[in-house]
Amino acid sequence: MTGKRPQVDIALVHHPVVNKHGETIGSAVTNLDLHDIARAARTFGVENYYVITPYTDQQAMVREICDHWQTGHGATRNPARKSALELIRISSSLDETLESISRQRLVRPLILSTSAKPQSNTLSYDAARELIASGRPLLLLFGTAHGLAPEISAMADHCLPPISGSTNYNHLSVRSAVSIIFDRLLSVST
Amino acid sequence: MTGKRPQVDIALVHHPVVNKHGETIGSAVTNLDLHDIARAARTFGVENYYVITPYTDQQAMVREICDHWQTGHGATRNPARKSALELIRISSSLDETLESISRQRLVRPLILSTSAKPQSNTLSYDAARELIASGRPLLLLFGTAHGLAPEISAMADHCLPPISGSTNYNHLSVRSAVSIIFDRLLSVST
Repeated sequence: MTGKRPQVDIALVHHPVVNKHGETIGSAVTNLDLHDIARAARTFGVENYYVITPYTDQQAMVREICDHWQTGHGATRNPARKSALELIRISSSLDETLESISRQRLVRPLILSTSAKPQSNTLSYDAARELIASGRPLLLLFGTAHGLAPEISAMADHCLPPISGSTNYNHLSVRSAVSIIFDRLLSVST
Repeated sequence: MTGKRPQVDIALVHHPVVNKHGETIGSAVTNLDLHDIARAARTFGVENYYVITPYTDQQAMVREICDHWQTGHGATRNPARKSALELIRISSSLDETLESISRQRLVRPLILSTSAKPQSNTLSYDAARELIASGRPLLLLFGTAHGLAPEISAMADHCLPPISGSTNYNHLSVRSAVSIIFDRLLSVST
């Protein structure tokens, strides 16, 4: 990618999200979401990976996992994992996340939500790549469970189009969706 | 994608692979590799997902997991998961996998290996997309642990280039790598 250094962050939302009936719920943090998404973030130069959950027991669990790989036995055994997991930031809400990013970037990021279903107000992947190359700070929002609650999506400036394969099946894991979207937005030409 | 129907299969190799010292080992099957990669395969129209392991206890575990989601409680609770996991085929070796594909496709598939490190004899993603659009049956090989053993890579016709983000970090999970490569080879234009 030519242009300025990408200033891209990601947030994985565990509350508020919706269940399969569209009801607002909070989901549990999944260990592999921490590892896989941190490794992908590290690969593609994403600088902060916010894990959003208001539940203090869940926050403590995330902290324990990160500590194991950053200062515990895992840090010496697997330095590559250390350098991925150190991108993780624990956050209680999207508001708190936005405050943190704004302090760091000195500007409110452009918020791009994601969804497995088509949404209004979409921004194409090409347009998003151009914004990134122009140096615009950008926050990518991903939901767990059955996706972001409407009040979270409403805080986004735009939504990225769903990932469509050659079928009408739209049940990718969030780990797969994040990886693909990083690649579409941040890969270098090969 | 214009052209003929893609005829793409994937194999996830658990033996022979290498450990971090480059020694040949067999790795354990990971539950989430089954789920995430099956869901991605289903999304992108990949038709067979071969899980290669010679260990009969590991084969039995894969069978139990697939049964749970195909005929057990999981099938009624989550039909979308059923339609993904039914792509899984248990196989003892790459040779057995090639025989199975050749019977089904009536031709030996072109074998493309993958690696986190640059290899000789690479085929570009654009060239692979063209082959797929021409209707050529193709098998994508992915390794677990620290990657495919040399004798497996030697059976491939070509290797796809490593996935490069904007950094020199090359430790994506196999789940992320598979998802990104499916998207590069099989996504429809948006």
